[in-house]
Amino acid sequence: MAVYTEVTDEALRLFLAEYDLGELLAFRGIAEGVENSNFALKTSNGDFILTLYEKRVDPAELPWFLGLMRHLGSRGLSCPLPVAGRDGVALRSLAGRPAAICTFLPGIWPRRVRPEHCAPLGAALATLHAAGEGFRAERPNTLGPRAWKPLLDRCRDGGDAVQPGLIAELDQHLSGILAEWPKGLPRGHIHADLFPDNVFFLEGRGGVPVCSGVIDFYFACTDFLAYDLAICLNAWCFEPDLAFNVTKARAMINAYNALRPLTQEELAALPVLCRGGAIRFLLTRLYDWTHTPPGALVTRKDPLEYLRRLRFHAQARNVGAYGL
Amino acid sequence: MAVYTEVTDEALRLFLAEYDLGELLAFRGIAEGVENSNFALKTSNGDFILTLYEKRVDPAELPWFLGLMRHLGSRGLSCPLPVAGRDGVALRSLAGRPAAICTFLPGIWPRRVRPEHCAPLGAALATLHAAGEGFRAERPNTLGPRAWKPLLDRCRDGGDAVQPGLIAELDQHLSGILAEWPKGLPRGHIHADLFPDNVFFLEGRGGVPVCSGVIDFYFACTDFLAYDLAICLNAWCFEPDLAFNVTKARAMINAYNALRPLTQEELAALPVLCRGGAIRFLLTRLYDWTHTPPGALVTRKDPLEYLRRLRFHAQARNVGAYGL
Repeated sequence: MAVYTEVTDEALRLFLAEYDLGELLAFRGIAEGVENSNFALKTSNGDFILTLYEKRVDPAELPWFLGLMRHLGSRGLSCPLPVAGRDGVALRSLAGRPAAICTFLPGIWPRRVRPEHCAPLGAALATLHAAGEGFRAERPNTLGPRAWKPLLDRCRDGGDAVQPGLIAELDQHLSGILAEWPKGLPRGHIHADLFPDNVFFLEGRGGVPVCSGVIDFYFACTDFLAYDLAICLNAWCFEPDLAFNVTKARAMINAYNALRPLTQEELAALPVLCRGGAIRFLLTRLYDWTHTPPGALVTRKDPLEYLRRLRFHAQARNVGAYGL
Repeated sequence: MAVYTEVTDEALRLFLAEYDLGELLAFRGIAEGVENSNFALKTSNGDFILTLYEKRVDPAELPWFLGLMRHLGSRGLSCPLPVAGRDGVALRSLAGRPAAICTFLPGIWPRRVRPEHCAPLGAALATLHAAGEGFRAERPNTLGPRAWKPLLDRCRDGGDAVQPGLIAELDQHLSGILAEWPKGLPRGHIHADLFPDNVFFLEGRGGVPVCSGVIDFYFACTDFLAYDLAICLNAWCFEPDLAFNVTKARAMINAYNALRPLTQEELAALPVLCRGGAIRFLLTRLYDWTHTPPGALVTRKDPLEYLRRLRFHAQARNVGAYGL
């Protein structure tokens, strides 16, 4: 369900008339993505992605997201670039929604993460962090540590129905995480949602995966850089049975570290940052789970997968647990 | 929900290794389509569509569908062409499903049908019927008149909950349709599901829509040619408020007639063929409506839209009601 808004032919024609994109050749809804409506757009000039921003995205924040993508792209990160209309404006309106066209990024996201994906992912993350330097505007992390207690409070009613004792366990984890949360780590612009479906790969020589780019910056914000790495450790290094794959973690961290060396403070904070990353996705999933009517046309993601991750990180004494 | 089956990277790589399609550049699920899983596939050789055939399609019938597409394509209809692997085989297997790659067809299906779409549609339908000649194998219409009574019987229990008195009204319509159903009209291979989302258009000179091709032949069968036109009259000529647009109908029929002149018998039978077309889609929608659990991840289509169409056709005395 990635197309929430239908676009009529007339509306599309009027919209494209504002651009220099040549002749329209194809227009198809894309199945991937859960936050916005995405369309594959083909014109005589090439392939593009048209995004209609749906309710979850605050229109006032879109210029920041598009500006960040432009900044990252100009600083060497491969990512979609907003395409401006003839008047120089990239953020427009279509079918009653804010809308933007971005360049098409070749590549395929890995449906099954292999260890060979993790070094290129770590390198792409470090590249993203370095490329973000110099983009002056900041965007607070609205799903960062300060949001977690209020989120948990809003899950109190339905939470224990998901698993008995869940809320008490989360209360305990959360107070520990907040008490240990680091201060003063290197900050910058982070992706904050760098799951496998947001990273594209092409096949290099000998079948080795090469990262062709990063997409979907609509959770990006300004926060500790190492927290982004912690999110990736959560998103990329657990097997389908939720066992932690230390080979993947080591490859990811080492590749990151080679481009942007982690400080001693960042390395020491990695376990608590990972606990934070796990509880952040646990809480938003739990919120959706307890607030989505069972019959809704939305696939609810299991929050308990992140409880398993959280428990793993909670027993990690130091960065050694992550293969270093 | 047009992607029912996930394809892993490894499975896709092994599958594509059987073809000469060059390097894989992109792979994305397509949101359109409800019967099968469709993916947009881009390689260094161009754009393709990969289809995984899901439960509703009988694998034994796939060679007939793919053969028909090949036949129609070679006889001048613009439609997707099955692409064979290096061994000459087009119908293969992927992720536990029958699967085929077809060529990519440029164009956009009309989200809102304008009168200017209807003449090119009529011409495309006549072209399809003419191109089908010479394809010897027949496929019975499994959703034709003989299927309607059993379908209605399976809706008896839940039907009146959709609208009181619905089943009695349908019984009456159906017995009339079956009693008047014509015999001996010109037969051939019909598309049988030529709704707007199965017909692509490009913009010609002066903004005039030009039909760029026809897709989705998985309901195609061998039946009265004029019944296909009746289905199109149902699918293309009613406005969103379900008023019948006689301008659209006239344009469609005239364009069809110019390429494949309709016989007097076909013209006389048009009203009952239209009633048949309406009840066919009414019954399958009613069946889905009464047999789909309310919470299922499927958008149920309103059967009553077709009751309104059926009533319109039932008051049509002759082809004059369709603008001729």
